[in-house]
Amino acid sequence: MNHSVLLTDLYQLTMADAYYQSGKAEDEAVFHLYFRKPPFKGGYALACGLERAAEFLENFRFSSEEISYLSRLTGADGKRLFSEDFLDAMAELKFTCDVDAVEEGTPVFANEPLIRVRGPISQCQLIETPLLNFVNFETLIATKASRLREAVKDDQLLEFGMRRAQGPDGAMAASRAAYVGGADATSNVLAGMKFGIPVKGTHAHSWVMSFDTEREAFEAYARAMPHNSVFLVDTYDTLDGVRRATEMAKIIEEKGHRLGGIRLDSGDLAYLSIEARKILDQAGLNDAKIVASNDLNENIIESLKAQGARIDVWGVGTQLATAYDQPALGGVYKLAAIREKGGDWEHRLKLSEQAVKVSTPGILGVRRYFDGQTYAGDLIYDELSGIDEPATLVDPADFTRRKPVSTFEFEELLVPIFRDGSRVYQSPGAEAARRRARTELLKFHASIRRFMNPHEYPVGFDARLHTLKTELILKARGLAQP
Amino acid sequence: MNHSVLLTDLYQLTMADAYYQSGKAEDEAVFHLYFRKPPFKGGYALACGLERAAEFLENFRFSSEEISYLSRLTGADGKRLFSEDFLDAMAELKFTCDVDAVEEGTPVFANEPLIRVRGPISQCQLIETPLLNFVNFETLIATKASRLREAVKDDQLLEFGMRRAQGPDGAMAASRAAYVGGADATSNVLAGMKFGIPVKGTHAHSWVMSFDTEREAFEAYARAMPHNSVFLVDTYDTLDGVRRATEMAKIIEEKGHRLGGIRLDSGDLAYLSIEARKILDQAGLNDAKIVASNDLNENIIESLKAQGARIDVWGVGTQLATAYDQPALGGVYKLAAIREKGGDWEHRLKLSEQAVKVSTPGILGVRRYFDGQTYAGDLIYDELSGIDEPATLVDPADFTRRKPVSTFEFEELLVPIFRDGSRVYQSPGAEAARRRARTELLKFHASIRRFMNPHEYPVGFDARLHTLKTELILKARGLAQP
Repeated sequence: MNHSVLLTDLYQLTMADAYYQSGKAEDEAVFHLYFRKPPFKGGYALACGLERAAEFLENFRFSSEEISYLSRLTGADGKRLFSEDFLDAMAELKFTCDVDAVEEGTPVFANEPLIRVRGPISQCQLIETPLLNFVNFETLIATKASRLREAVKDDQLLEFGMRRAQGPDGAMAASRAAYVGGADATSNVLAGMKFGIPVKGTHAHSWVMSFDTEREAFEAYARAMPHNSVFLVDTYDTLDGVRRATEMAKIIEEKGHRLGGIRLDSGDLAYLSIEARKILDQAGLNDAKIVASNDLNENIIESLKAQGARIDVWGVGTQLATAYDQPALGGVYKLAAIREKGGDWEHRLKLSEQAVKVSTPGILGVRRYFDGQTYAGDLIYDELSGIDEPATLVDPADFTRRKPVSTFEFEELLVPIFRDGSRVYQSPGAEAARRRARTELLKFHASIRRFMNPHEYPVGFDARLHTLKTELILKARGLAQP
Repeated sequence: MNHSVLLTDLYQLTMADAYYQSGKAEDEAVFHLYFRKPPFKGGYALACGLERAAEFLENFRFSSEEISYLSRLTGADGKRLFSEDFLDAMAELKFTCDVDAVEEGTPVFANEPLIRVRGPISQCQLIETPLLNFVNFETLIATKASRLREAVKDDQLLEFGMRRAQGPDGAMAASRAAYVGGADATSNVLAGMKFGIPVKGTHAHSWVMSFDTEREAFEAYARAMPHNSVFLVDTYDTLDGVRRATEMAKIIEEKGHRLGGIRLDSGDLAYLSIEARKILDQAGLNDAKIVASNDLNENIIESLKAQGARIDVWGVGTQLATAYDQPALGGVYKLAAIREKGGDWEHRLKLSEQAVKVSTPGILGVRRYFDGQTYAGDLIYDELSGIDEPATLVDPADFTRRKPVSTFEFEELLVPIFRDGSRVYQSPGAEAARRRARTELLKFHASIRRFMNPHEYPVGFDARLHTLKTELILKARGLAQP
């Protein structure tokens, strides 16, 4: 799907115009997209949204319709908002930035750049809002799905949140990101077609209600769909419905199939699943699955499992597709370095009264160190300053805490996506990102995946970067005094 | 924007196939889309999403690519999931339903049909998920915006949530719905172009950071955009920034304009706005506006106003675009009546252990009564049963509470949108829906707009419908016994 370049905040365009008029439009800048806190009070996030971001950037150009719309916008005086020179430049604009990013499905932590953009400052600004939009949302949902995956363990996890997702694309992006994060399938047929995700579904309460009795409804369904037979049993009386479903096994077997299972969508899922299992087993249907749904989330699933619920397949809708308990990730996009044409790089940071909100200057990279068993820590460093050897993580929250990592192997998390505006990275797709997520998550100590007070994985600054940032903060605070 | 017919849950398609195979695909059904509780613990919701729903239905047809995808899906046995007859029928399918709906911008209440669909049951099912998706989300956001409108009173309200919205369309639909609900403008340029919504924006922190000093940054901006001059003043020291902004007034006046104002994006907005106002006034800039943002919602805005904050323009992002405190509306779509070809209508309801979750049978209409001052109550009635005259609202939660309304004027809330699959309603657009929302909301007693324990507006069943529903529940509970 191509998105218009106007999918951005107006101030990106007014700033771009002002950069043109100030002769700074071609000043080279570096911006980083990162978050300050993992979502859901968790220990990590799963990067997602890069595929869409790359597609967007690949198609980054203004159409004549878009230019014409912009030319009709007015300022406070009722005259045109944008200068003609600027709009002429936009009509000709070619995307020329370098973009590096963390691959989809990679576990990431606070303050690590998920995307780094380097190029003319006007271009860097124009793409800020869409990049944040794509990455914030998909990372949020992939992370939520990976938490649900953690809760269901080896059971099946289905996403079916479309009806309450935030718009059609909210549903589409959620289905894809949920799959990357660990869902096995979705009810969203279009996501199945577009992203190659397995789709699942059988029938609803309305099917049962449209017949005079539940028995008639089940029989009709069994005859029509014996190869896709999970019966929703709670339209009238749930355990009655389970017994009635077992009676369908014969019809289904006559057609050469096995009863797929039953679905519980209300009531006490622990009690009902245990009783339903007994009924199914007594009918010799040990292979029939019990599917459960009804406002599930990772905590409820953990609790149901602790209660001995006999659920094989977990359907999660609203809580997954909207990340109900935290429906937005607060990712930000901050200027970190700038240079005038022919000049030297200057570091930049944004001050804040809260230390955690002060941005990090530099052209940042991230190295992830592996101690042979698990990942040992991530080093955020500034390419301009270089790494202070032997490599040591300096805890940004307490610079007296340091962890040496130089004896470990490492990999660079940021990979080239665009060079001089040309795409140099092909997305491996949702399926590959999903495999990556599972493999990579297991290389961390399990305690980062805990829901309650997860372990804080060590992410540190390189010592030179730490010193640089401290100096710049002190300098900026000095300058900021009246 | 056209959406694929596959934007639906798989079970709608498996049910449709099973209806075809059971010879019931052309049975006529009536479904209602409604919610059971207004969002945000509020007293109402603002209907929204119909324009998109109507566009979707107008373009409801399967493409060959879609049929081909469906033909490749498999069941448990690895053989095709869908029958060939069914897919042939889908390839030829024409939408033939009657659709009635509440117009966008209309205040609505629990249990009232927002959309009523009548037609072949297979078609009614296929469109369930997209209708819910469109209406749930846009109604949610329009309602949130109208609460923010209530909080800001006559001040300006800006929506700028794109960066943390749930995907690009989450941002687009949110911008439109927020405008319908009462926002004055958005930062979303594409929403401006597509929906004719006013757009606003000036510059970000990065603008200031990209210059060596705040003064240079402000001067460059003032020269480039004197006709759109709201200065973001909190990059370094906020009140310092305000003073610096006042110094720009001269440059701006030399270019024939007035200083637009300043924007506060952090810190204590009550204190800072009061102090900023003094600085601006002392500089003779009484007409300069103070814009504030930073995780605002209706409660914070109310509190800031109570503290005497001098804010003229309120920018709300994440909290509005994602409806952060309740990111999904739980709208449902329930079968309420059915008839076989040539047969009589049969009422249908879905039982539940919770009384509030029992659906309402019939072909429902809603009359809204006006007592000359305010709306007096809404009557939900069944067209098949007719209205028990003199019209009386029976409280669904306590049938001994009754309110006679027959002496009042009324209007029907549901208007025809499709007849026999043809669109008979032209959407008046976002601007008209916005006016309707404001006008209509003011015809209710103000107490329904209160945030804390709002007044419960009387919505009752017609007496015949009440009796019918009671009888059907008793009958169903009887039938449901083992």
